[in-house]
Amino acid sequence: MRIDIITVLPELMRSPFEGSIMKRAIEKGLVEVHFHNLRDYAYDKRRSIDDYQFGGGAGMVMMIQPIDECITKLKSERDYDEIIYMTPDGETLNQPMANKMSLYENIIILCGHYKGVDQRVRDLHITKEISIGDYVLSGGEIGAIVFCDALIRLIPGVLSDETSALTDSFQDNLLSPPIYTRPAEYKGMKVPDVLLSGHFANIEKWREEKAYEHTKNRRPDLLEE
Amino acid sequence: MRIDIITVLPELMRSPFEGSIMKRAIEKGLVEVHFHNLRDYAYDKRRSIDDYQFGGGAGMVMMIQPIDECITKLKSERDYDEIIYMTPDGETLNQPMANKMSLYENIIILCGHYKGVDQRVRDLHITKEISIGDYVLSGGEIGAIVFCDALIRLIPGVLSDETSALTDSFQDNLLSPPIYTRPAEYKGMKVPDVLLSGHFANIEKWREEKAYEHTKNRRPDLLEE
Repeated sequence: MRIDIITVLPELMRSPFEGSIMKRAIEKGLVEVHFHNLRDYAYDKRRSIDDYQFGGGAGMVMMIQPIDECITKLKSERDYDEIIYMTPDGETLNQPMANKMSLYENIIILCGHYKGVDQRVRDLHITKEISIGDYVLSGGEIGAIVFCDALIRLIPGVLSDETSALTDSFQDNLLSPPIYTRPAEYKGMKVPDVLLSGHFANIEKWREEKAYEHTKNRRPDLLEE
Repeated sequence: MRIDIITVLPELMRSPFEGSIMKRAIEKGLVEVHFHNLRDYAYDKRRSIDDYQFGGGAGMVMMIQPIDECITKLKSERDYDEIIYMTPDGETLNQPMANKMSLYENIIILCGHYKGVDQRVRDLHITKEISIGDYVLSGGEIGAIVFCDALIRLIPGVLSDETSALTDSFQDNLLSPPIYTRPAEYKGMKVPDVLLSGHFANIEKWREEKAYEHTKNRRPDLLEE
């Protein structure tokens, strides 16, 4: 998979891509991530990429010209599955969407910053608008980090143990059951006996029950789907 | 506000706190963010912080002892409003939650990594479990970045123009109307006339209508609340 990220703040996004799962995926050649600094497509002296809103109001708006030039250049070089704009009013990301999009070959992610992008960018280029949740962030960069991480960890070969992702919360509409590790007793708190029993069928049964119970208590909406 | 973040990968979280809004808030003294590396609380030779699951299964589990020692030390130093665990099965973050929690004085954020933390950590210390959305990430670090950004930008004095946050999506259960900036015409695409009219009342009316229409099309659930 190739991911092209368009942003005014590439340096803000650096560390999450230099650690953990995303770093490993990049090093293994399973994903390529290219950052494009919008200011490289701004041609006035100040390399402006934003301006005041037409009609007045607080917050700056990202101008169409630098974004249009950057996206047009990328589109001339290869075909993209989706050109994605990270925005709180987009479609809310969930696990089935991440599963599907982890199969894509090439995507562009445009990170909104300030008050957002000129609407004409969205009308002209964007094929999918994605939100990571019902809250506002200081920029689409942070949303893009989340989106990339959710996708990249699903690419086969990225996680060291591939079965691990399959037992995650949401993959079967159930939350995960409780998990425990050593010591078996800590300050009087004991691990449930069944987990120490070595009886695989009982352990599976206990986990299924706990997962169902936990989901019913916390997220009954997941069971209705 | 003081935020204590407990993690096995502090370096992964660095860049988002060194740029943009979060950096400015820290420099202005409006928020203090302290990273605590869990390995500093692991005392065996390998400084282990994780171990295999009791009962078998893929994925490592974060042990209780280093986390307990870190949280216990912090709690002995000050009172905390909440001790938060970032986990996909937590309460889903939304804007009203962010608004409320942005008023807190001291919080601890524990970032789960690998398969998650020993259940006894949650039973013993955690007062609130938060998810940033219905998808799985490689670690709670990325969720914590999102959570901190959503909170910090709401602290008075952080955003350069305080009215900007008030007109964001979700603050009034409406998505934002379209926004435009110069040029007024780009490759034949024009900015709506009303925004160029200078007639403030008409502009406000247009924006309200567009915000409502946009919300009705994309997120009718927000209008039902």
